[in-house]
Formats: sequence, C-alpha cells, structure tokens
Amino acid sequence: MTASFTIALDVMGGDHGASVILPAARRSLKVADDFRLLLVGDQETIESGISGWSASERERVEMVHASQVVGMDELPAVALRTKRDSSMRVAIDQVKNGAAQACVSAGNTGGLMATARYVLKTLPGIDRPAIATALPSMNGHTHMLDLGANVDVEAAHLYQFAVMGSVLANAVDGLEAPRVGLLNIGSEAIKGNDRVREAGRMLEESSLNYIGFVEGNDVYCGDVDVVVCDGFVGNVALKISEGVAKMISSKMKAEFDASVFSRLSGLFALPVLRRIRHRFDHRRYNGASLLGLQGVVIKSHGSADELAFEHAIRIARIEAEANISSRIDKQLGQLLGQETSE
Amino acid sequence: MTASFTIALDVMGGDHGASVILPAARRSLKVADDFRLLLVGDQETIESGISGWSASERERVEMVHASQVVGMDELPAVALRTKRDSSMRVAIDQVKNGAAQACVSAGNTGGLMATARYVLKTLPGIDRPAIATALPSMNGHTHMLDLGANVDVEAAHLYQFAVMGSVLANAVDGLEAPRVGLLNIGSEAIKGNDRVREAGRMLEESSLNYIGFVEGNDVYCGDVDVVVCDGFVGNVALKISEGVAKMISSKMKAEFDASVFSRLSGLFALPVLRRIRHRFDHRRYNGASLLGLQGVVIKSHGSADELAFEHAIRIARIEAEANISSRIDKQLGQLLGQETSE
Repeated sequence: MTASFTIALDVMGGDHGASVILPAARRSLKVADDFRLLLVGDQETIESGISGWSASERERVEMVHASQVVGMDELPAVALRTKRDSSMRVAIDQVKNGAAQACVSAGNTGGLMATARYVLKTLPGIDRPAIATALPSMNGHTHMLDLGANVDVEAAHLYQFAVMGSVLANAVDGLEAPRVGLLNIGSEAIKGNDRVREAGRMLEESSLNYIGFVEGNDVYCGDVDVVVCDGFVGNVALKISEGVAKMISSKMKAEFDASVFSRLSGLFALPVLRRIRHRFDHRRYNGASLLGLQGVVIKSHGSADELAFEHAIRIARIEAEANISSRIDKQLGQLLGQETSE
Repeated sequence: MTASFTIALDVMGGDHGASVILPAARRSLKVADDFRLLLVGDQETIESGISGWSASERERVEMVHASQVVGMDELPAVALRTKRDSSMRVAIDQVKNGAAQACVSAGNTGGLMATARYVLKTLPGIDRPAIATALPSMNGHTHMLDLGANVDVEAAHLYQFAVMGSVLANAVDGLEAPRVGLLNIGSEAIKGNDRVREAGRMLEESSLNYIGFVEGNDVYCGDVDVVVCDGFVGNVALKISEGVAKMISSKMKAEFDASVFSRLSGLFALPVLRRIRHRFDHRRYNGASLLGLQGVVIKSHGSADELAFEHAIRIARIEAEANISSRIDKQLGQLLGQETSE
C-alpha cells in the first residue's frame, strides 16, 4: 500500500523527548501501513534513536533537522520569537508547507498553541482555536472542549467551539448528528451566567443537534457526544476527573493491601481490576486536538509514555484522514450562511 | 445533660419531605444528647410522623407550624415574596429570633440562599455568602467553596471565600492554620484569568496560610485543606466528581458481573469493595454550609435519604457548637483591621 498521508512528529518535545517518541513512532508504523512519518528534531539524536529499525521501517520515515527545543516552562511569546528552528516550530511548518497533513507534539501547550496559530492561522470565522479531547463515558466517550486554550470567552466563542466539536465527533466517530451540550450549573434556562445563556440561544437557532444545558455529571453519563465550555472550566473539569480517578484507584489498592484476606481477595479480583484499569487507562485517551486551525495539530501529554504517544499519533492519523480542518471550515460556512439567510 | 443548643429543621423540604426528615431527626437524637430540635412544618404531618417516638425523644423536640412549602423548582424571588409562612422561611426565622442556633433544609438551593440572606443578612465585610462542602481526599477531606451561589465573582469575593473557608476548616477540623489554595488552571503565576491572579496577590498579603494556586487534581490529593473558586467552576467540579465516581463504580459492577469467574472473584472482593464504597459514600458528605451569614444554615441534598439528612444535622451541630458565624466575623475583622493598619 502506498502511503496516503504524512505526519510530522516533534521528536524533542515533552518530558522524555526522543527516548519515548521514537519507540512510539516505531509502534505506530506497525499498527497501520498507509502513512509516513517526518521525524523532526536533532539529526544526530534521531539517527542514533532509529539505528536499530528495520529497513522497511526506515523507508517510511524521513528526518527533518531542527536545532532548537522549546522548554516545558518556556513562555509562549518567547518560544515564538526566539525558537524559530525548534522541533515544535519545524514540525508545524511541515503542515503549513504541505509536506505533512498533521503534526504531533508533547511540548508545552501554550507554546504549541501560539506557534500553531502564528504559522497555520485560524480558519475563517474562528476567532480562537480550542483544545478538545475524548473522555471515557458510560457507553463510549464524550468529546469536551475547550480544555484550557481560552480562559475568558464570549458567547460567540462557545458557539464556535460547539461547531468544531460537532464536526470532530462526526469525523472521528461517524456520528450523523452528534448531540452537543453546553456545560452549565443547572439544566434550567435561568441558571448560569450571561455568556452561557446567550450561547445557548445561539445554538438553539443553529442546525446543530443542540440538546441544551448539561451539568458536570452528564459529561460521563453517555447521553451527550460533545460538551462545550470555556477553557478555565474545561481544564478544571479534566484535572478534577483525573484527581478523583487517582484517589479511588489508590484507595482501592490500599484496601486490597490492608490484610492477608483482602490481599487474597485482591488476587482473585485481579483480572477484573486489570480490565477496569485498561478501560480507564488515561494513556488510551492521550492526544488532544487543537481545533480551528488551518491544519491538524495534536497535543500529547508532556509525560506521555510510548503507548500514550502512539495513541496521539493514532488521533493525528484519524484527523488527517478525515481532513478535519476543511470539514470544520465547510460546516462553519454553511452554518453562518444559513443563519444570515434566515 | 441539658441541651446546650437547638437546631431548626425544615421538615417539608426536599424531594421526600417529612417521610425522610423525621426518621433522620430521630436518628440524630440517638447520636448525641446535648441538643434539641425544632420541627418546622405542617403540624398534622409532623404529629403523625412522630407518633411512634418514645417519650424521651418527644421531650427533646418542639413543633413549629408552617402552612406553606417552597417547591423544588420555585424561583428564589417568588419563594421569598409569596411564601412567608413556608417551612424553609420559618426554620430560618428561628435562627434569626434566637430560638435556634442553626437550621437545616433540603429545599431548593436558590430559595434557601435568597431567604437566608434576606432574613439573617450577611456578616459585615461579606458581600456574598458562599456554599461550602467537604470532599473526601487521599488522607481526610478538603473543604471547597463556592459551589454555586455566585457565578460571577470579583477577586475580593474570592478573598472573602478564602477567609470563610479557613475559619470553617479551623472550627470543624481543629486545624491551627488550614492550607488555603486558589483553584486555577496552572500553578504558575502567569496562568489563569485576571480575577484569580488578583485574588492570589491579595491572599499572599493576608495572614491566612495561603499556599498558592492549586489545580483540579489537587482537590483530592490531600495537600490542601481549603480550595477556593467561583460558584460556576465549583459546581461543575463537584458534579463532575460525582459523574466520574458513578461511572467507575458502575463499570466495576458490570465487570464483576460479566462472567461466573468474575462474579466469584467479586464475591471474594465484596468486603473490600464494601469498605471502599463506605469511604466514598456521598451520603456521609451531605450537608453544605451557607457561609457568610449572621447565623448557621445547612443545605442538605434534595434527594437525601435518612442517613444523608442525619449527616447534614451533624454538620449543623458542629457549626452551631463552634459558633462559626461569629468566628468568621471575628477573623474577617482582624484581617481587614490588620490590612488597613499596614
């Protein structure tokens, strides 16, 4: 099979850089054979990292040298101004110049967002890109956005997030009319703040499958496909979910370790507990989409391991294949056209 | 032992009214003998509800008739204007006129907050009351506020919430200098929005044990005693935590039910799973405090069962005994005095 598209990887980004990202890249090549990789970063590091790869694996990758690395704590503006040859920037450049159809970076979120926005530009009609990810739910998963790119938003931004999330769920999950909910603190129309109420009115008049206000607990219930909120709320929601899951799992471990009997019963329960852990493995949810840009950019968790980073590459493949950016562009054009013609 | 204080119960509030609240009241009388109850509501309903109580139980309660009930979906302003003889209003009146040192209601949050604020007034220096509750953490619990009373806040309000939360943790948990954190989306000072950053600067200059910004996952880690945020974020955080916990517990049940072997291993693990469930039983966390008022008002979950409502009465006892309102008043006076004298 000839490669139908190419993904650029920022090999130097994240907490572990090439030591995790190159093995993850190799894993991803085994999973599917219809794509190629551009490995962006320090040439020497990459060459030594892939020296043990097979000839057929090496045939599917190409190196792109970049002399700089954006630090995890670097300010976005500084990264943008002083790191024009960073692996992050050069990986995004590959999408801009058409050499790749998507890029993946585990580098710092602020720097990645600022650079991607500067290099790729936003789609017409999108004021601000948003960060979206899938969260496990009772019967599948729920897409949530924004997760931290925009702390202060207007109603119009929430509306744009809803459009982008709907296109994402349509493209990734093949849903005809994804159910879109607006995160609020009560399902009654009088509750919440002005921004959320106004966004609700805008969405009611749109052709999206808007199901109204949803509350925090609805994110995980499986009755909504896309949950829209501002970046402050979304980021807190995401991290608080991690906190709850971690506490429950640690308390379970402690309880099973508490006595000989409970250790024994833990042994019996092990296969079941392992299945549960697998289902909620956050690594299987790694890979957040920067939506609203003229190109596909996927952000991996900075501390991602091989399995997690490979999952981020998988998301990039799906979004590149689905041509998500032009789909958002098209749907937004339709929605805006439709509204003005009404 | 003679009763040292009195708690007024809104017997008619919540989803279940007297059928749950009277049995819960009876339970609470068994737990401690240093308090009395005022049962506020329809006299006939209450009389028939306590007809089976022992003489010593009946000696510790008094009925206060109220002819109206505030509905769960009633608008706060309507409840306030048209329900002057509601069980909710009359229960709060008992605190105002000194007949009770605290009151508990499972009625609707908006109505309770509006009525409590109108009848009791806020403490000097407090612009807006906040709702606080304790959440289980890795090694105890964390107090969080505001949970929904204030959706749009200024930095000064977050500062006041921090003072109130600190006093609450001090009074309830006996902590000398509770660690107070401000919920944000990154621990670096440059992140978050203007309100949160400004509140952070104010808290740094205060004599509170302010530990800086905390993120969503820190709420459950046990390294902070009081987490401060606006009511929109707090409400989402609370409900999303419920959603995660519910999903995990339901998936666990499904996995253990999946096969004969897993059912068997679930049987072995049952005592351990039961202990875990007990530890995270949300009923044992029922009872949110309306802080910043000239009097103690506790809000129970509307759907609370006997055990949960009894826990809300327990919180009322603790706060009445600790005289929480005058403690907040005193600490706020000291902090404000201290600041102006600097």
